[in-house]
Amino acid sequence: MQYKAEIHVTLKRTVNDPQGLAIRGGLHSLGFETVESVRAGKFIEVWLEADSAQEAQRLADDMSDRLLANPVIEDYRVELVAADQARTSPRSAGGGVT
Amino acid sequence: MQYKAEIHVTLKRTVNDPQGLAIRGGLHSLGFETVESVRAGKFIEVWLEADSAQEAQRLADDMSDRLLANPVIEDYRVELVAADQARTSPRSAGGGVT
Repeated sequence: MQYKAEIHVTLKRTVNDPQGLAIRGGLHSLGFETVESVRAGKFIEVWLEADSAQEAQRLADDMSDRLLANPVIEDYRVELVAADQARTSPRSAGGGVT
Repeated sequence: MQYKAEIHVTLKRTVNDPQGLAIRGGLHSLGFETVESVRAGKFIEVWLEADSAQEAQRLADDMSDRLLANPVIEDYRVELVAADQARTSPRSAGGGVT
């Protein structure tokens, strides 16, 4: 069955975030002066085949540990999306991904 | 009141995603051969002051339109997080952000 894993990779709280600071500066320059802080992270969508939701979750956790996140400075969070929603894979929709 | 906006910025479906392709290649090399496709996007957390949730949402949409996303090639999605959860601002927690 096809699953979609939505993986958020964020810097750990104690790690400096120059990209977030740059965004905050940009927002202030544009007049958004009520912005207090900004953190920038990654959002990775993975479509995969697995026998069960448990297996898909295990695979996505393993991918995050081994490639998608740097465990020294980053945290990650995996959310599995139901298989019917996963059918909106860019591949099956003819997007430019494969 | 303090709000936190979680903003997902993703490439439009018809836009090529070389970063996603590279990640997919890396996952295949690591043995995750059931991965069909990968899309890479950005996840931006913004803590801001606003008078109401509606105002915070409007500001976050405006920021996304004007700075965070490139509307020609990217889509964005804003989720407002309740004010009590927003208290986990990295600034108030003493993180290295301010």
